[in-house]
Amino acid sequence: MTRILSEKYRSKVMSAEEAAKLIKNGDTIGFAGFTGSGYPKALPVALAAQIKAAHARGDEFRINVLTGASTAPELDGALAETGGVGMRMPYQSDPSMRNAINNGTSDYHDVHLSHSAAQVRHGFWGEMDFAVIEVTKIKEDGTVVPSSSVGNNNVYMEKAKGIILEVNSWQSEDLEGMHDIYSNKMAPHTEPIPITSAGQRIGSTTYDIDFSRVVAVIETDSADRNTPFKPLDDESKAIASHFIDFLGGEVKAGRIPSSLLPLQSGVGNIANAVLAGLLDAPFDQFVSYTEVIQDGMVDLIDAGKLAVASATAFSLSPTCAEKMNDKASFYRTKIILRPQEVSNHPEVIRRLGVISCNGLLEADIYGNVNSTNVMGTKMMNGIGGSGDFTRNAFISCFVTPSVAKNGDISAIVPMVSHHDHTEHDAMVIITEQGLADCRGLSPKQRAKKIIDNCAHPDYRAQLHDYFDRAAVKGVHTPHLLTEALSWHQRFLDTGSMKIS
Amino acid sequence: MTRILSEKYRSKVMSAEEAAKLIKNGDTIGFAGFTGSGYPKALPVALAAQIKAAHARGDEFRINVLTGASTAPELDGALAETGGVGMRMPYQSDPSMRNAINNGTSDYHDVHLSHSAAQVRHGFWGEMDFAVIEVTKIKEDGTVVPSSSVGNNNVYMEKAKGIILEVNSWQSEDLEGMHDIYSNKMAPHTEPIPITSAGQRIGSTTYDIDFSRVVAVIETDSADRNTPFKPLDDESKAIASHFIDFLGGEVKAGRIPSSLLPLQSGVGNIANAVLAGLLDAPFDQFVSYTEVIQDGMVDLIDAGKLAVASATAFSLSPTCAEKMNDKASFYRTKIILRPQEVSNHPEVIRRLGVISCNGLLEADIYGNVNSTNVMGTKMMNGIGGSGDFTRNAFISCFVTPSVAKNGDISAIVPMVSHHDHTEHDAMVIITEQGLADCRGLSPKQRAKKIIDNCAHPDYRAQLHDYFDRAAVKGVHTPHLLTEALSWHQRFLDTGSMKIS
Repeated sequence: MTRILSEKYRSKVMSAEEAAKLIKNGDTIGFAGFTGSGYPKALPVALAAQIKAAHARGDEFRINVLTGASTAPELDGALAETGGVGMRMPYQSDPSMRNAINNGTSDYHDVHLSHSAAQVRHGFWGEMDFAVIEVTKIKEDGTVVPSSSVGNNNVYMEKAKGIILEVNSWQSEDLEGMHDIYSNKMAPHTEPIPITSAGQRIGSTTYDIDFSRVVAVIETDSADRNTPFKPLDDESKAIASHFIDFLGGEVKAGRIPSSLLPLQSGVGNIANAVLAGLLDAPFDQFVSYTEVIQDGMVDLIDAGKLAVASATAFSLSPTCAEKMNDKASFYRTKIILRPQEVSNHPEVIRRLGVISCNGLLEADIYGNVNSTNVMGTKMMNGIGGSGDFTRNAFISCFVTPSVAKNGDISAIVPMVSHHDHTEHDAMVIITEQGLADCRGLSPKQRAKKIIDNCAHPDYRAQLHDYFDRAAVKGVHTPHLLTEALSWHQRFLDTGSMKIS
Repeated sequence: MTRILSEKYRSKVMSAEEAAKLIKNGDTIGFAGFTGSGYPKALPVALAAQIKAAHARGDEFRINVLTGASTAPELDGALAETGGVGMRMPYQSDPSMRNAINNGTSDYHDVHLSHSAAQVRHGFWGEMDFAVIEVTKIKEDGTVVPSSSVGNNNVYMEKAKGIILEVNSWQSEDLEGMHDIYSNKMAPHTEPIPITSAGQRIGSTTYDIDFSRVVAVIETDSADRNTPFKPLDDESKAIASHFIDFLGGEVKAGRIPSSLLPLQSGVGNIANAVLAGLLDAPFDQFVSYTEVIQDGMVDLIDAGKLAVASATAFSLSPTCAEKMNDKASFYRTKIILRPQEVSNHPEVIRRLGVISCNGLLEADIYGNVNSTNVMGTKMMNGIGGSGDFTRNAFISCFVTPSVAKNGDISAIVPMVSHHDHTEHDAMVIITEQGLADCRGLSPKQRAKKIIDNCAHPDYRAQLHDYFDRAAVKGVHTPHLLTEALSWHQRFLDTGSMKIS
């Protein structure tokens, strides 16, 4: 049965191939999609074919790709493989797109997720030619039910000259009622975002779209790119246990309530493991004000531990995605999906007193964090929302195994090779070895704590040696400038950060 | 005539020396004071004498010093010289304090100014033994008129076990009515800060103090540490002119209104010069949402260009401070002094769409900024509010001469030796050479623009050479890890960043 109940929208139905023809060389397109959910599944593939054909004819065809965050092979992958993506913004995690960025085919703009919407609205990224948005259903009255992510969809549809909708019948119709769509005005007319608790709704459950700009409606029936999480291992369990002990200590010290403060959890296996750890933790009826709903959060809801979770998208395993589709009418009473400019807005994060928990590539002995550039130069995925939350959290935590590549890379280094979060913002560093609470510590105090508590034993002596030799001089942040980045260079030269 | 009109407060009057005796070894003290204004002038000197006497007797005497921001020789200077400051938070600029921090006598915590109040309120910094606050007047009803800065005074007085007031009759009584004292609740009970325009008042004009905790009242009559600004030179005029051209371009492009968006201006000579430049710029009736009122802003008010300025403190020349004292009844209709957790709050900065403009120590070719650590190691003053504004501004700008130390230090380097503001946050870099608008540019695009537009001609070839050799590899952020910090090392070794 069709999900397009509005007559006028039905008149715009066409194939993805027909719709793709509307898009021209040089166009800027705002795509739906956030951490592999709610992205358009048909149009990007058809567009990629069209770009390839143009290139085969010797014609130029390059487009600018804006999204919510990462998407999937059918979007970032297909488009990047054509070599026809000129500009990409704001977060990505596709291997082909990553290659295009690193080899210079595509210019990548790694902006904070909370900034992207306002910048588009104010025209920093030029004119928006098309918005290509996946939705669940178009209702009789012409209002539109969002799908499994909201991201920047509201802004892209407000700004785009042409709107292309993909109506995906794989998404559960029971998602209706889960979303909270709210758009703010441009400065200087911006108003306070009135959220004072994670579960509060301030907007509408559907998109109100300007039909006069709808140029195509495509019907699809395809699953989101849902990938299973890695099974919990001892390392991730140890990390979760340090985090939970820390929270317990904060409760005991009276700095946070026994039901905690709203939790944010980054995307990925380690973050998901931390959530799993909370299942057995002595905290009840806590809430989450976060970016993405992963399996661990759904489990916490099922267990009755998590009262409500606010986010902008799902990022689920295939099994959990099926459960979500089956029981969306239940989960929509516990989960709110908001635009990313609300889920990640500093105003709300700071007000609610969020406790953030994100992954990292490496941290240094002074608590600076690299989340994006491998060995200081090669783009991995982007900063995502980690800056939005870290910078404004009540307590900001980072989690990572202490070593990578079979021990040849230490996650704790003398100086990070790229800075995404500074010593002013990162508060707590956690590895399977232990936890360093850097709040209220000067750089020299932090160095000792991070080395002793977080670094892998194989690297502790080497780190202490660096610090001790640097600290001979009377300075605030001891460093040996000729050695600060030598660990990374040694890895590039020898395959290991260890001094052989 | 006395400024202490309340009988009960008069009963607490004593000398600074008597009051200082209340303070014991190990105490944590929240002092008033922000950029050399509104700090207590008598108690810290008396306390320093007491600490020195204790040390002479061989007794231990160390205190922890929290303030709004930088103070003056009578506070940071006098206390640092005793060697008795254990911990210092959050911003300082006194030479003796700087030495104590770098040589390890004092542990310095360089936290964002907007974070400091909430962290104190939540107990991150331990118990607050005393608040030592300068005020202008104690009224008959016991309410208290603030003086020339607000800073963290409200929070320190809420938290401290004992409150010591200095009533300074040098401050104009007409300051009454200029302040807007507003305290928010702790998370999770924090409420939206209802400011939607820079000139809006949301609090009270006086402090409402819990008298039962007032342990001493001291009378003083001393000027703030007001230092003259350097006369404008060609360099600062060129920087101002690039900034103003940029703003004009933004207006023309329709991205900001012709009356601009609220301006923030950092502390110091260059920032003040930028303000001076606005006197002749084609913008009218603009407003300022900033941290500090400097001479340039007062001149703009006098000229009828600046409609209203919101800040937390003054930082004026002696001449301008006299004018402020004479005409406070006029200026209080144009100037609002708020607590620093409001003046610097991300919520309000982001909402109002502030255009920030701050100084820096160095920027790199990818737009990362060092504001604090000279040659990556030696603490200068601290990050102050630059992070609060840069991270949340609608447009964030940084201004600096392109070289320092007679040309031997380039303000544009391959990689900054310390990161206070990342490439994700700094948008526009301005030197006397020109302006680089990095919005919407990938790292490689930024590098070319920053080198060509901002670097001093003496360093351009050297920077291009670094970038070109690094960019040979297909990576997102080209760097040569063995050379990235070599410019700083060369300066340390040879006295110049130039390759001889």
